[in-house]
Amino acid sequence: MDPLDEVCVFSPGTLGSFASQCLRAVGVRQSDAEAVSDAMLDAQLRGVDSHGMTRLLTIYVERLEAGLINPKGAPRLVKDEGVTAIVDADNSLGPVGASLAVDLSRDRARTFGAAWIAVMHSNHFGACAYYGNQVASDGMIGIVFSNAPPAMAPWGGRKPYLGTNPMGISVPRRDAPPVSIDMATSVAAKGYIILAASEGRPIPPGWAIDVAGRATTDAREALAGSVLPMAGHKGYALALGIDILAGVLAGSAFGQGIGQLYGAQSQPQDVGHLIAAIDIAHFLPLEAFYDRLEQMIVEMQAIPLAEDSPGIFLPGEIEAQEKNRRLEAGIPVPARVAEQLSKLGDRLGVRLGSPRIS
Amino acid sequence: MDPLDEVCVFSPGTLGSFASQCLRAVGVRQSDAEAVSDAMLDAQLRGVDSHGMTRLLTIYVERLEAGLINPKGAPRLVKDEGVTAIVDADNSLGPVGASLAVDLSRDRARTFGAAWIAVMHSNHFGACAYYGNQVASDGMIGIVFSNAPPAMAPWGGRKPYLGTNPMGISVPRRDAPPVSIDMATSVAAKGYIILAASEGRPIPPGWAIDVAGRATTDAREALAGSVLPMAGHKGYALALGIDILAGVLAGSAFGQGIGQLYGAQSQPQDVGHLIAAIDIAHFLPLEAFYDRLEQMIVEMQAIPLAEDSPGIFLPGEIEAQEKNRRLEAGIPVPARVAEQLSKLGDRLGVRLGSPRIS
Repeated sequence: MDPLDEVCVFSPGTLGSFASQCLRAVGVRQSDAEAVSDAMLDAQLRGVDSHGMTRLLTIYVERLEAGLINPKGAPRLVKDEGVTAIVDADNSLGPVGASLAVDLSRDRARTFGAAWIAVMHSNHFGACAYYGNQVASDGMIGIVFSNAPPAMAPWGGRKPYLGTNPMGISVPRRDAPPVSIDMATSVAAKGYIILAASEGRPIPPGWAIDVAGRATTDAREALAGSVLPMAGHKGYALALGIDILAGVLAGSAFGQGIGQLYGAQSQPQDVGHLIAAIDIAHFLPLEAFYDRLEQMIVEMQAIPLAEDSPGIFLPGEIEAQEKNRRLEAGIPVPARVAEQLSKLGDRLGVRLGSPRIS
Repeated sequence: MDPLDEVCVFSPGTLGSFASQCLRAVGVRQSDAEAVSDAMLDAQLRGVDSHGMTRLLTIYVERLEAGLINPKGAPRLVKDEGVTAIVDADNSLGPVGASLAVDLSRDRARTFGAAWIAVMHSNHFGACAYYGNQVASDGMIGIVFSNAPPAMAPWGGRKPYLGTNPMGISVPRRDAPPVSIDMATSVAAKGYIILAASEGRPIPPGWAIDVAGRATTDAREALAGSVLPMAGHKGYALALGIDILAGVLAGSAFGQGIGQLYGAQSQPQDVGHLIAAIDIAHFLPLEAFYDRLEQMIVEMQAIPLAEDSPGIFLPGEIEAQEKNRRLEAGIPVPARVAEQLSKLGDRLGVRLGSPRIS
């Protein structure tokens, strides 16, 4: 076995504490460092490594060091009308402003029945599910939109204008993790293509076109070109709608105005988010909702399986199972990724704790 | 040319008046007949014949005659908390309750900034765009969800449980028709498959599976089997999310509990809708929003075109152009469809006006 293919297994606490200390070392406040670390760790625990700590920590640190993200950014309400509000994230790390918006959306939805909280002047915030699931943990339905830097050509075009603008819908269950929908509006999240490029792997056909508009399975060519929208023109339409909601309406940048996360960039990202909360109890008693939802899930999971199907899974169900597994057994990290993290720590004076198994 | 392939061209007024009179003849109130006729005619004008009057009028009349839709159904507010409300549609025609919800959503959003109006115990309401665009006409963003009868297998399954549950997002522009996103969460709206089956045409590969779970291009086999979700598991997830919002939360039927529109059905449909309105002015001045949106559209439509691309179109742009064309030149209807409508009229004592050209 190539030693670079080896896998180290870290405890969640080891990785979380490392991320938090690295962010502290580049000037981020303790509470913000913990909020960002929690967001990255949650994705990593759920098996969404493309949005996890091992992918994001280094780029977050580099952008903080380059002055492209404000380590002391202090999100504040700049418009507040109760049901609707806008948070100016002050160019802080994405999870900082988004977490404030989650808290606000729950408070306001509890009072008014529903809320729409926009976040402007923010940065990459990780996975939508993290925020939606927090709304759902309070007996509410969470809907989360974010725009993202240009990666996808509008339908009929051949150069990127729209991001892979993701959306999430999280719905609470009585005694189970939430139904947690989280999707990029591209065929695949750009994070998977970046991961494939960094690991030298090809990507499946149908994911992307190169700079000339030709189909490609080369992850590096795909990053230079344009990812394709999911479901053709429908994914394009959704990506556009999300950019209108999270960018145009929120007062943040949109389309080609959004700064890239990676590469030799000199501008802040100026990403926008929009978080909606719907308090279920304003429609029907929460227990009645749970009864109806469980009835639906039981009925749907009793549908006969297609040939070779491993089962009918709810959105987020596999991720929730993976989270339980990783909380117990630890988080597998390729040895070369662990090595990169270790070097990052050395540079910042932060020690990466030992893996459980190496 | 086979005479059955001939096309008649009707004025919008002729078709609209015919639809309205047919509905009157089976007991629908004048104002409701006009509301339903307007909804069907709008889709027909926009070129969305799968959701237009020529497809829907006959089945609506048949279901009214069979007592499966209440011609005198009177939608009423059964829960009202201001920002959120539930309309019981009283088993009236879909557009009746949905139009009331549109009006309420605008009033409430004007006051509170946003609103979520659910509609329970409703029926097939046509195209989401019709309702979203009405919200948008008032300087608001309209978001529309509806559930629909079982047509689509959950991902991993082989029998229908979910509907082709559509969603729409409509965004107003300053001096142009709204950006109007309207999509089924299946690869194709079931209306297209029904239209293909009625015209004896095959459907493209990838749209559907037969009862045994095998791929099919036979429209009739597809109707007996299961349509496929757009974008694979992502479309499944969205369809499920929409059923939770428009069915489980709204207090209407969901999943296999929803009655079919076609076929020897003996149960009311009990469809649910959920309509959200966001008043843009609660976020930023409407003129500033329009400036930002037009900037985005200009930038995006300046992206270089892919080979053989006819252009970069906004969602709803082609439909809006078709509406202008059909308002002027009339609505083309296949001769055999016109013949069916004429026979329906004969049975109800309603005369279908002459086509302009036959």
